[in-house]
Amino acid sequence: MSETTETRPVKGELLHEGKAKKVFKTDREDLLIQEFKNDATAFDGTKKGTIEGKGTVNCQVSAMMFKLLAENGIENHYVELLSENAMAILPVEIIPVEVVVRNITAGSLVRHRGFEEGKKLDPTIVEWYLKNNELHDPLINDSHILAFGYLDEDGMALLREKALKINEILLEFFAGIGIDLVDFKLEFGRRPDGSIILADEISPDTCRLWDKETGRKLDKDRFRFDLGDVEEAYQEILKRTATAN
Amino acid sequence: MSETTETRPVKGELLHEGKAKKVFKTDREDLLIQEFKNDATAFDGTKKGTIEGKGTVNCQVSAMMFKLLAENGIENHYVELLSENAMAILPVEIIPVEVVVRNITAGSLVRHRGFEEGKKLDPTIVEWYLKNNELHDPLINDSHILAFGYLDEDGMALLREKALKINEILLEFFAGIGIDLVDFKLEFGRRPDGSIILADEISPDTCRLWDKETGRKLDKDRFRFDLGDVEEAYQEILKRTATAN
Repeated sequence: MSETTETRPVKGELLHEGKAKKVFKTDREDLLIQEFKNDATAFDGTKKGTIEGKGTVNCQVSAMMFKLLAENGIENHYVELLSENAMAILPVEIIPVEVVVRNITAGSLVRHRGFEEGKKLDPTIVEWYLKNNELHDPLINDSHILAFGYLDEDGMALLREKALKINEILLEFFAGIGIDLVDFKLEFGRRPDGSIILADEISPDTCRLWDKETGRKLDKDRFRFDLGDVEEAYQEILKRTATAN
Repeated sequence: MSETTETRPVKGELLHEGKAKKVFKTDREDLLIQEFKNDATAFDGTKKGTIEGKGTVNCQVSAMMFKLLAENGIENHYVELLSENAMAILPVEIIPVEVVVRNITAGSLVRHRGFEEGKKLDPTIVEWYLKNNELHDPLINDSHILAFGYLDEDGMALLREKALKINEILLEFFAGIGIDLVDFKLEFGRRPDGSIILADEISPDTCRLWDKETGRKLDKDRFRFDLGDVEEAYQEILKRTATAN
């Protein structure tokens, strides 16, 4: 994707408001606008707050990651930046299965599944989570997805393959700016022609990013666990990402 | 297995006490004794009680199921009945991954994963749960098992294949006594020679069993959800199972 539109799309009606983003219709059927908020939530929305500048960081970092991925053959919904915190995207029907890729143990692996934090994983862990707030986005497996009918065997293989390819690209990118990509969450969507492309965002909200030298956490865990200097960590990721591009 | 021992093993020291069973050493290195208790627990042990006669029902039903499975080529730890509520078993090192097979939606599929109860599943759902009380036996996936090192790809394929074969055999057996086998939990263990065999129990504690005509629940859900007539349901399963054999 990432081709520039001839005329800038004009923002229309609000289509969907999530915890961290708003999606708007535009005057063009083939484009939506995704706007990134400063609102932060954690633990299924039980913890709420604001991270100054987060909307901008997440929008800019996502734009750069989507461009990088597109250059490496990973089709995605990004079209172009419209402002500091808004981008034009292609409309997709989001598949209600979040894909999590893990290179190092952290988060729910430690809290809920008995792994010790900070251990390198080999092979890489890939997980499916049902996108369902009421049920707290539970882990699901292949046979659940088949039973729901969200994807068939080929669709799951495709998503797993894409997720691992994305992991390779992002691991290398973040390593180049001194960061360990610990884990990240992806969402995919279906285009009108039935093809599946990457959607959502790639940012410190959806990735765990640890400084390679100090081990310092530069992601939403600073907000989740009240580690302080949250804004500064987000800015640090934007600065390093922008420098690399 | 299920060959008779020449001399009855003599009960020795208690090796392990679980929520529903005790395992004892015997005077023979190659045999243990598994004793079934009337104690009932549910929801990670937060609900406790006693079901009169449960130890006997679960021991007798398990013995019959293990014999049936052995006759159908599924090696398991059962050797012989020693009393109403005790059986001789082969020692195995239990693999800390519980295998759940589901033919009809119920239980955690409904409570935690958004399925409607009582729907026939096609294909059959197979799930892995980490055997870990503190973590409340969480659902895990293939890549978690690889990361833990509990099984390799071949081991997982073997367990899945055995679980589905067991499902076929049990589905047919229970259908013959007017019961829908909704779902069940299996545990497997490693023999000293490295081979993996079925262990644990197969009973109304570990299976959901619904009367085909009335839909009446004839399993531990009567205890879990205070449905009444718990003892009578367990006796009904024993009666029907024994009649079929």
